[in-house]
Amino acid sequence: MEHSDTGRRMGHEAIGVVEAVGADLRTMKVGDLVVMPFAYSDGTCVFCHEGLHTSCIHGGFFGTGAMDGAQAEAVRVPQADGTLFVLPVGKDDALMPSLVTLSDVMGTGHHAAVAAKVAPGKTVAVVGDGAVGLCGVIAARRLGAEQIIILGRHADRIALAKEFGATDVVSERGDEAVERVRELTGGFGVHSVLECVGLEQSMLTAISIARPGGAVGRVGVPQDETMSASRPAFYNNITVSGGPAPVRAYIEELLPDILEGRIEPGRVFDRVVRLDEVPDGYRAMDQREAIKSWSSSEAPALMEAAAQTELGESVLN
Amino acid sequence: MEHSDTGRRMGHEAIGVVEAVGADLRTMKVGDLVVMPFAYSDGTCVFCHEGLHTSCIHGGFFGTGAMDGAQAEAVRVPQADGTLFVLPVGKDDALMPSLVTLSDVMGTGHHAAVAAKVAPGKTVAVVGDGAVGLCGVIAARRLGAEQIIILGRHADRIALAKEFGATDVVSERGDEAVERVRELTGGFGVHSVLECVGLEQSMLTAISIARPGGAVGRVGVPQDETMSASRPAFYNNITVSGGPAPVRAYIEELLPDILEGRIEPGRVFDRVVRLDEVPDGYRAMDQREAIKSWSSSEAPALMEAAAQTELGESVLN
Repeated sequence: MEHSDTGRRMGHEAIGVVEAVGADLRTMKVGDLVVMPFAYSDGTCVFCHEGLHTSCIHGGFFGTGAMDGAQAEAVRVPQADGTLFVLPVGKDDALMPSLVTLSDVMGTGHHAAVAAKVAPGKTVAVVGDGAVGLCGVIAARRLGAEQIIILGRHADRIALAKEFGATDVVSERGDEAVERVRELTGGFGVHSVLECVGLEQSMLTAISIARPGGAVGRVGVPQDETMSASRPAFYNNITVSGGPAPVRAYIEELLPDILEGRIEPGRVFDRVVRLDEVPDGYRAMDQREAIKSWSSSEAPALMEAAAQTELGESVLN
Repeated sequence: MEHSDTGRRMGHEAIGVVEAVGADLRTMKVGDLVVMPFAYSDGTCVFCHEGLHTSCIHGGFFGTGAMDGAQAEAVRVPQADGTLFVLPVGKDDALMPSLVTLSDVMGTGHHAAVAAKVAPGKTVAVVGDGAVGLCGVIAARRLGAEQIIILGRHADRIALAKEFGATDVVSERGDEAVERVRELTGGFGVHSVLECVGLEQSMLTAISIARPGGAVGRVGVPQDETMSASRPAFYNNITVSGGPAPVRAYIEELLPDILEGRIEPGRVFDRVVRLDEVPDGYRAMDQREAIKSWSSSEAPALMEAAAQTELGESVLN
C-alpha cells in the first residue's frame, strides 16, 4: 500500500447524478444517473474492445496518483463516455446500494468467478468473507455452481454468505481448512477457487483446495512479489488467473439481475456515514464492525468543478 | 531433481512392440505397435475422463520411485489398457521418431499451447529451444498462430524452429529479451507464452512478455517453490496455467497429423545411441551437442519379463 504524509482523498466506487459534461460527450447528459467503475477507460482501445478495461491504454484508477478518490462532494471523471454507465433508474431508487456495487465489488466478485471458470454444476470455494468474497458467492451461484464453500470466520458475514447461496462454511485456517474442504468434496478439492484476500497464506490455501485441473481466480491484490505454491499448482495443472476486474465490461450482464431483484449485492453495505465520517467508516471495516460502509453527499457545491469541465469529462455528484 | 547414489534406470518415453500381455487386457495383443505416455493411467477414473491422465487416481510416472524407466531392453507397463495407445503402423515405419514424440515432447508442447490459449490469429512466444520448445512451435503453428517468436540461442535449434514455423527469433535474455518481444508485437507483448524451461528467470520473462489478458502455458518443471512476477501477472490479468502434460489425451488429435506428414516432431532427434551408450546421449543433450537423443534396443531377452506379466500389464519392447 502507498503511504501518504499529507492525506489523500480515498475511495473509488461511486454512483450519482451528472452535474456537468464536457462538449465532446456523446452518451450522457446532465441529470443522468450513472455508475462509475473504479478504473477510468476510453472504451475504444484494443484492450477495452477485448473487455479488459483495467488495461486501457489511456486509462487509470481513481484514488491513485494525481486522480482524486471518490469520497468527495463531486468527482471529475475523465473519458466519461468510456468510463461511466448510464443507469435506467432515478437517484432515489431503492436499488442504489446494489447498483453502486457495479462500481467494484460485485463486478470484482464476478471477475473472480469468471477467472476461476465457474459454470453450472461446478464445486466452488470462496476464500475471504469481505464484501468482494460475499459478491463472489453471489456470482458463483448466479453462474450455476452446485456447491459453494465460504472460507471465513465472521458470524455476520457468514450469515450473509449463506443467504447469498453458500452451501458450506469452513472457519478453520491453513492445513485444517484444506483438510475440511477436501472432506466436503469427496477428497478432491473444488473445481473453482475465488481468492478474495491477496495474502501469501490465502493463496497457498486457494491452490491447496483446488482439485487437479481446477482454477483459482484471484482478485485479492497480492501483497507479495512472488506467488506461493507454484509447484503444487504446476503438478496439479491448476490455472491461476484474475487481476483488477474490468467491471465496466460486466455491467451490461449484471445490471438486469439487480434491476429485477435476482441478486442483492447491496446487502454488503451495513453502515452509512456522512462524508465527514468517512474515516470512521474505514475504521469500522478494518475492525470488522462493518462489512462495508457507504458514504453519501447531498447538495454539494459543484459550481466551480462544473465550470472547469473539459471536453471528454463529466462531473458526477 | 532427485539424487540417487545407486544409479537408476532413466527415461520415460517409449514406442515398441507388445511382447506379452496380462489376462485382463482388452485393447491390445502381442505384436501390436504401441506408444507409451510418460505417465501411466487407468483410463477410467474421473480425472482420466476429464482428459487429465497425469492426475489419474491410480496413475504415476515411469522412471520415478519404484517404477522403472524406459531406457531398457523391455518395459513393464501397468494398467496397459489405460496407458498404451495402439498405433496403426508397423515398427519399421519411417515415422517412428515422430510417433515416439507422442510419448512426451510433442504432447507436452501441445499442452503448453493449449494452456496458453493459442488460437488462430494469435501472437505466440515460446520460451526455450529444447525439444519441448521446438514441439511447442509445431503446436502453435498447428493451432493457427499468426506470429511465433522463439526465445533461444542455439543455432541448430533455432534453424529447426524456423522450419517448424517460428516467424521471429529473440536471442537476447532478461530485460533485453522483453524489450525485443515488445518491439515485435506493437509494444503489447504476445497473447500466448509457452514456458518450456522452468527456471525463475524464464518464468519472469514469460510473464513479462505476455500482453494484458494473455496467458502463460508452463510445461517446464518449476525449479522453485514460489513463482516470480506474481504482481505483474495480477495487474495485467495474465493467466498462468499448465503442468505435466496429459499426453495420453492428446494422441488421438495429434496422430493423424503425424501419419499424414503435416507435422514432423521426430526431427528433434538428432542423435541415435545404443542402450549401453545412453549416458553419453544424456551428456550430449546436457552439453547442447544434441537436441534430443534416441536409444534403440533390438532383440531383447524378454522371456522372463513376459512370464511374470500380471493381469493388467503389458510388456513392451
